[in-house]
Amino acid sequence: MLKVPAHQVAGHRADGGKLGPLVDDSGRFYKPLQGDERGAREVAFYTSFSSDTKVPDHISRFFPKFYGTQLLEASDGSGMKPHVVLQDLTFSRVNPSVMDIKIGSRTWSPEESAEQIQKCLKKDRESSSLPLGFRLSGMQIFGTKESGFWKPEKTWIQSISTNEVRLLLKKFVSSDTSALKPDCAFASIVYGGSKGILSQLLELKAWFEDQTSYHFFACSILMMFEKELALDGKSPCPEIKLVDFAHVFEGRGVIDHNFLGGLCSLIKFISEILTTPEDSATNGLVEDVHRSHVYPENGSA
Amino acid sequence: MLKVPAHQVAGHRADGGKLGPLVDDSGRFYKPLQGDERGAREVAFYTSFSSDTKVPDHISRFFPKFYGTQLLEASDGSGMKPHVVLQDLTFSRVNPSVMDIKIGSRTWSPEESAEQIQKCLKKDRESSSLPLGFRLSGMQIFGTKESGFWKPEKTWIQSISTNEVRLLLKKFVSSDTSALKPDCAFASIVYGGSKGILSQLLELKAWFEDQTSYHFFACSILMMFEKELALDGKSPCPEIKLVDFAHVFEGRGVIDHNFLGGLCSLIKFISEILTTPEDSATNGLVEDVHRSHVYPENGSA
Repeated sequence: MLKVPAHQVAGHRADGGKLGPLVDDSGRFYKPLQGDERGAREVAFYTSFSSDTKVPDHISRFFPKFYGTQLLEASDGSGMKPHVVLQDLTFSRVNPSVMDIKIGSRTWSPEESAEQIQKCLKKDRESSSLPLGFRLSGMQIFGTKESGFWKPEKTWIQSISTNEVRLLLKKFVSSDTSALKPDCAFASIVYGGSKGILSQLLELKAWFEDQTSYHFFACSILMMFEKELALDGKSPCPEIKLVDFAHVFEGRGVIDHNFLGGLCSLIKFISEILTTPEDSATNGLVEDVHRSHVYPENGSA
Repeated sequence: MLKVPAHQVAGHRADGGKLGPLVDDSGRFYKPLQGDERGAREVAFYTSFSSDTKVPDHISRFFPKFYGTQLLEASDGSGMKPHVVLQDLTFSRVNPSVMDIKIGSRTWSPEESAEQIQKCLKKDRESSSLPLGFRLSGMQIFGTKESGFWKPEKTWIQSISTNEVRLLLKKFVSSDTSALKPDCAFASIVYGGSKGILSQLLELKAWFEDQTSYHFFACSILMMFEKELALDGKSPCPEIKLVDFAHVFEGRGVIDHNFLGGLCSLIKFISEILTTPEDSATNGLVEDVHRSHVYPENGSA
């Protein structure tokens, strides 16, 4: 039985008769292939990457498992369409807090057309991509069973300032999604520690300093964890995954300096939250976030 | 007695009645201030940086010493003009091999005008800046007292391919500037070792992973050494210096991911020369470089 993914925070959604990804009950995620070169590039990437013996296990674990492609009734009722079959990344999770962060100050490859470059450059300039080297594409934070998820509007989150980005990265690991000042209560067990998100980002960084096979444009890092597990005294299972490979190009012997630069910038933001959670940089900005348009969603538990 | 610098490999030159920097006999370098905001920004940077107590000594040594500004008869005979007074970086050197590498896939700040952005973006696309994260701006390699310096034309060097960049980074540390295949004879003592260029670049990288005060656009790293000292069995005094700060902007709490990405890319190229100097990637390309327009200059010894 195929259904709309419950915890998708960015990208096209399959609800309301639109075309989007579906999931099944066995942990698989079916993403409709974009008809143009983007679909072809995404399949080419997964095919190449999943058989690339140079990628070590501690890195390939950051990517969704790939199960080939499959013809499937599309979610918009337009008939049978090719889908790429992937691991459903939130399958084993109950009420995950999820953040989708598009990495790189540049979301376009030098190989793209002048028109495409101008289109992406405009978006990069209007978002935090250009100043920060990354932008938030979407997020949900689990509050309580009663309040459900805090999920800001995508159009808003993609246009926020540096200080608002910093604040949302703190809010993501705070105990109360409606508090005016984030307490960063879960920072040390989600971002910190030997198995925390910072540690995983640093492993990824070391690989990007070396690998020259792939250049990832407009690719996202998902950060996920489960607040309820932490409240039960268990590990919140913090985890990063890379997604969206419709703009992966051959590296041709050069490192992906665009992705690496953005990744280092994100690492610096996360590090600062761990070392100075009470930094005054976000004071006075909390209100801005609360004035923004948000809507609650119910938790699935 | 002011004169035209002997070992300038990039930027405006003061010879032929043009406006450019001058040097004196005491080790000072006089750079005419650009009349627009670029001149103001460069002075603002040097003023701020030279009194910035957060910059550790092992990093400030990579920057020219700053001695303020001074009104001086300009090299083009246009009268008294303000100059920024700096350390002459090649003052104590005899026949230095020098390479000027402009760092960053983007030579423009997000704060610049749309017109300026398009102008710089065009140059970045036409050079190796966009694919590699850096471009060679100029270079000279000392050959022998008889042959003098090998100094490729600036217009050519700024438009070369990835493999030609790799080849020139090898040729820079090879014994014979006219050999078809670079032997990388000096790679281990110039690029390698605890005081070599790679080690210095890694120190700079560690600082860029942390510092959030300055964003350096269109800034260059100079790499210098002296082949003759190596031939005498002495250290060739490998050294890096950062120059050109007309496009330095405030970092505002964010790392300079554009400079850092390009720096990591350069580091990867240099590392590969040290680990695999005989890499086949440059085979068959040597001829391209030798077909290019070069002109010899005499050594000063």
